[in-house]
Amino acid sequence: MVSNEPSPESTAAPQALHDLDLTGDVADLTAALMDIESVSGQERALADTLEVALRRLGHLQVHRDGDALVARTLLGRPERVVLAGHLDTVPLPTTPGARGTVPATWDGATLYGRGATDMKGGVAVQLALAATLPDPNRDVTFIFYDHEEVEGSKSGLGRLARNSPELLEGDFAILLEPTNGTVEGGCNGTSRYKVRTRGVAAHSARAWMGVNAIHAAAPILAILADYTPASVDVDGLSYRESLNAVRINGGIAGNVIPDDCEVEVNYRFAPDKDLAAAQAHVFELFQGFEIERTDGAPGARPGLQHPAAASFVAAVGRTPMPKFGWTDVSRFSALGIPAVNFGPGDALLAHSDDEHVTRAAIHDCLAALRRWLGGAPQDTAEPAGR
Amino acid sequence: MVSNEPSPESTAAPQALHDLDLTGDVADLTAALMDIESVSGQERALADTLEVALRRLGHLQVHRDGDALVARTLLGRPERVVLAGHLDTVPLPTTPGARGTVPATWDGATLYGRGATDMKGGVAVQLALAATLPDPNRDVTFIFYDHEEVEGSKSGLGRLARNSPELLEGDFAILLEPTNGTVEGGCNGTSRYKVRTRGVAAHSARAWMGVNAIHAAAPILAILADYTPASVDVDGLSYRESLNAVRINGGIAGNVIPDDCEVEVNYRFAPDKDLAAAQAHVFELFQGFEIERTDGAPGARPGLQHPAAASFVAAVGRTPMPKFGWTDVSRFSALGIPAVNFGPGDALLAHSDDEHVTRAAIHDCLAALRRWLGGAPQDTAEPAGR
Repeated sequence: MVSNEPSPESTAAPQALHDLDLTGDVADLTAALMDIESVSGQERALADTLEVALRRLGHLQVHRDGDALVARTLLGRPERVVLAGHLDTVPLPTTPGARGTVPATWDGATLYGRGATDMKGGVAVQLALAATLPDPNRDVTFIFYDHEEVEGSKSGLGRLARNSPELLEGDFAILLEPTNGTVEGGCNGTSRYKVRTRGVAAHSARAWMGVNAIHAAAPILAILADYTPASVDVDGLSYRESLNAVRINGGIAGNVIPDDCEVEVNYRFAPDKDLAAAQAHVFELFQGFEIERTDGAPGARPGLQHPAAASFVAAVGRTPMPKFGWTDVSRFSALGIPAVNFGPGDALLAHSDDEHVTRAAIHDCLAALRRWLGGAPQDTAEPAGR
Repeated sequence: MVSNEPSPESTAAPQALHDLDLTGDVADLTAALMDIESVSGQERALADTLEVALRRLGHLQVHRDGDALVARTLLGRPERVVLAGHLDTVPLPTTPGARGTVPATWDGATLYGRGATDMKGGVAVQLALAATLPDPNRDVTFIFYDHEEVEGSKSGLGRLARNSPELLEGDFAILLEPTNGTVEGGCNGTSRYKVRTRGVAAHSARAWMGVNAIHAAAPILAILADYTPASVDVDGLSYRESLNAVRINGGIAGNVIPDDCEVEVNYRFAPDKDLAAAQAHVFELFQGFEIERTDGAPGARPGLQHPAAASFVAAVGRTPMPKFGWTDVSRFSALGIPAVNFGPGDALLAHSDDEHVTRAAIHDCLAALRRWLGGAPQDTAEPAGR
């Protein structure tokens, strides 16, 4: 495990580059990637390292945009698949003794550390495929990008789509976000609203001179508490929706009748609806209340009817599932490219203080993609002594 | 209007004292008192000024405790009445152009400025009575005290009650807080509670993994919204109660199912109940919820059946009303002294940016007290030229 203390002088000069072995054990490669700290906004050292490693390979055309990299085979295959993953992680845990941190640590065959599931295992699988599969049965575009874990406007994938949309072209995309080795199709959309009540402030000793905005929010909470979220079948997958208050705030002092109360509502909606339909549903639910939408991103249909997707699902050999969380498959979907999530590790561990992934999960993910892309099986047995 | 810029060197040395005319027009005296800024904690200049003025009178025994003053007639009358008022004000308005500030300003016969209603008019009436009624039909104890507008533990009246309880003795007390010239008897009690719901945090994309604490607060708001507050008859006055959420807070982020929601509830209760009974009522209302009391002060019964109170009500000549806000009558009540509020100005203007009082209201208040204390009527006509 290599120490990677960023030095303040290093922003202009190239970073001291890590010598990555892309052809060795992909789980060890994961650990090496995890040791290169890359919290959102600090992806440069990792991007530099990957750029050097990818350019060395020779059979790939490499393009860099900020701290995003695109590496493509140009074999003239009738079909092109995009394999994409983000380089950044959420910040390191602050809890003393947390194992989901940097550097990575092995506990038997389990790898602990920041990025273990989200998503340096997936990035390692991309790199291993790039290095060991020079002649895939489909052309492959490998995308590594920055700023996924922060506001969408900073997304490196979004920037690539604006700057070089031709580099993102493909018939099918796989995002190597953690799915426990199952194909997770599409994703739910997400949208946020502020539902507000207003009253009239007064001293609480003479409460009848005022109108209590918090009391006026009682029906809002009742609507939320009574709501039964739908599960919606889209292209054969069942998308479970949810509608939740995520924040509530009202009142300014212990002796003042509050004249304002605000409930922030998050509606996660199935990809049968666009953002406008989702908003219409929420507005109807809270009819009569002051409401505005503050945020929103559409979901993505699973697109599993596409031949490339179908053959991929067959290669993985497990029943595909819906993806509930919003992921960048939605960006591919918006570009007209069917996309699924498929990666090692448990999404529920992402961002946790205990983030970890097993060696086997990373091996299995690589093996499935190799199978589908026409590569010979590799020996995925654990090296002796681990 | 005298300028009263406090100088930093003045804390040890006596303040430059204002020459107050206690025997002139009581409304002009009010304006002079208002010009001596006395936000809570900064009452010294005003207390110094009053101490000098009171000691000059000769017929009063004067006692000082911090920035509180007690001045008493010792005429051996069979009955003693306490007239009490606080010297401090809330901070000056920050709104540009607000008229409820320092120095005071006249607009016709209306006096604008901080303390106009709360309560330099009342203090001026106390001083005028002290100066012009050397031979009242009852012994009179004038109390001027500090730190009324801040937390109760700092109260100058509370400090006097601890240090020199004998100086507070009396058969009946009148607090010259603003009541628009009506006798307001007793006061409601006040108590505050935190009612809390807990849930289980989860990413809002998989809301079903969590339990939403804000949704769980829906019944709390429903209880509050549906509650019909009582009006309770105590000693012939009807005390209107109130139960209100004054603050609500829940949730930590736009994508996290909240595991905590807290509703702060203020119960203002009639003086037929003590604090324990008030708490029992609220705990019963929110049975099954996590609840704690965070604050509380009992009310005070009006005590209008006391002969001194009854004669005072008769002298005022208007139907007495209940006091809804908590005032220091509660402290007298706790000492076993029946107490009422009676003072010039509208309590609803207290603390406002527009605080003001009319010349007539101050004159009328003084006249009623003079009548009751056996003084000859004074000419309360407005001086020429105003």
